[in-house]
Amino acid sequence: MRLRNIPNADEKINKSKYIIKTAEQYRGKMNELFSSEQPIHVEIGMGKGDFIITTAIKNPNINFIGIEKYASVLVKAIEKLENKNLNNLKIINMDANDIEKIFDHEIDTIYLNFSDPWPKAKHTKRRLTSQNFLEKYKLIFKNVNHIIMKTDNRKLFEYSIKNFNEFQYHIKTISLDLHADQPIDNVESEYEKKFAVKGYPIYQIEVEK
Amino acid sequence: MRLRNIPNADEKINKSKYIIKTAEQYRGKMNELFSSEQPIHVEIGMGKGDFIITTAIKNPNINFIGIEKYASVLVKAIEKLENKNLNNLKIINMDANDIEKIFDHEIDTIYLNFSDPWPKAKHTKRRLTSQNFLEKYKLIFKNVNHIIMKTDNRKLFEYSIKNFNEFQYHIKTISLDLHADQPIDNVESEYEKKFAVKGYPIYQIEVEK
Repeated sequence: MRLRNIPNADEKINKSKYIIKTAEQYRGKMNELFSSEQPIHVEIGMGKGDFIITTAIKNPNINFIGIEKYASVLVKAIEKLENKNLNNLKIINMDANDIEKIFDHEIDTIYLNFSDPWPKAKHTKRRLTSQNFLEKYKLIFKNVNHIIMKTDNRKLFEYSIKNFNEFQYHIKTISLDLHADQPIDNVESEYEKKFAVKGYPIYQIEVEK
Repeated sequence: MRLRNIPNADEKINKSKYIIKTAEQYRGKMNELFSSEQPIHVEIGMGKGDFIITTAIKNPNINFIGIEKYASVLVKAIEKLENKNLNNLKIINMDANDIEKIFDHEIDTIYLNFSDPWPKAKHTKRRLTSQNFLEKYKLIFKNVNHIIMKTDNRKLFEYSIKNFNEFQYHIKTISLDLHADQPIDNVESEYEKKFAVKGYPIYQIEVEK
């Protein structure tokens, strides 16, 4: 994604009650940040927040944590949250690469929505379904490793299927054209809304081990 | 596929030198049917034969056996072979369900090209990538279980990915749009030629274990 520079993005973000500024202090006890001890679901790369905000509203019995590297994107999510009062959503402005420094065997589900495909071979390690990341996830999942991934990028999806298979993940569901399947519980990200109009397939896979 | 009734199809087939009439007699020693002892590749559901004939011509160091249930379809393949002299191709007019009665730990690769998707749940067992068939294949593969599948049927492909994963197959390659990838060694089946023109994706997966 090309990023627009948003003046004072950092300042705006840090004022929000949704933002966890010293997340590493809560490592292994993230549930203390919420009013109820509940399963924790994390979206890595939450972008402008459409998916995680809608999903958090729909699922009050789950605690959600959104991660996003870019303050200039995150600021849009913060704006959307201004008039909402969600007790089950927190946001961390961080690089996914540090994920195991922030969480410790306490996550139930990871969502990967329209992640950067990093098409060049030399950037393989940066893909959120690379061996590099699947190893990190092992350190943050509580019990069952449970990942739900959506993308429009065919090459990233092919790569991810192969990698999940390689890592002995069990494939719970797979769709090679999610919108044709019309799942009633699909929550669209802002990227997905734009993309779906063009008629290309959205791929989804749910895996666990 | 809707089948046209071809008069004397059985008679025409049985006259062909490519047809093995008493295949069960060669169980465990299929290589005796060929002039050279070579790896054996089987196409289950060879239809009118475009794929297996072209592939056999291109790969003289492999012995090919095509299987097809319908004589009225097979007769077209026999006609295509009339003026050819291929030493590395044989054909059996049989139901794939009986495959383990015909072969015994002697197959190196199975090709599944545009197999019947059997969309109804009650017909799941008939899908050539069902548990039922993956168990049968174990009995006919020599060492490594190696399957190359191509289809335009999204639901069958999703089902097959899940099943290969379930059966601990390793995914060697996967393409969710084979023609966009333009592999130089792709041999099109007659069905594929017709279908590709319409612009829908052809899916391919190569697995082994």
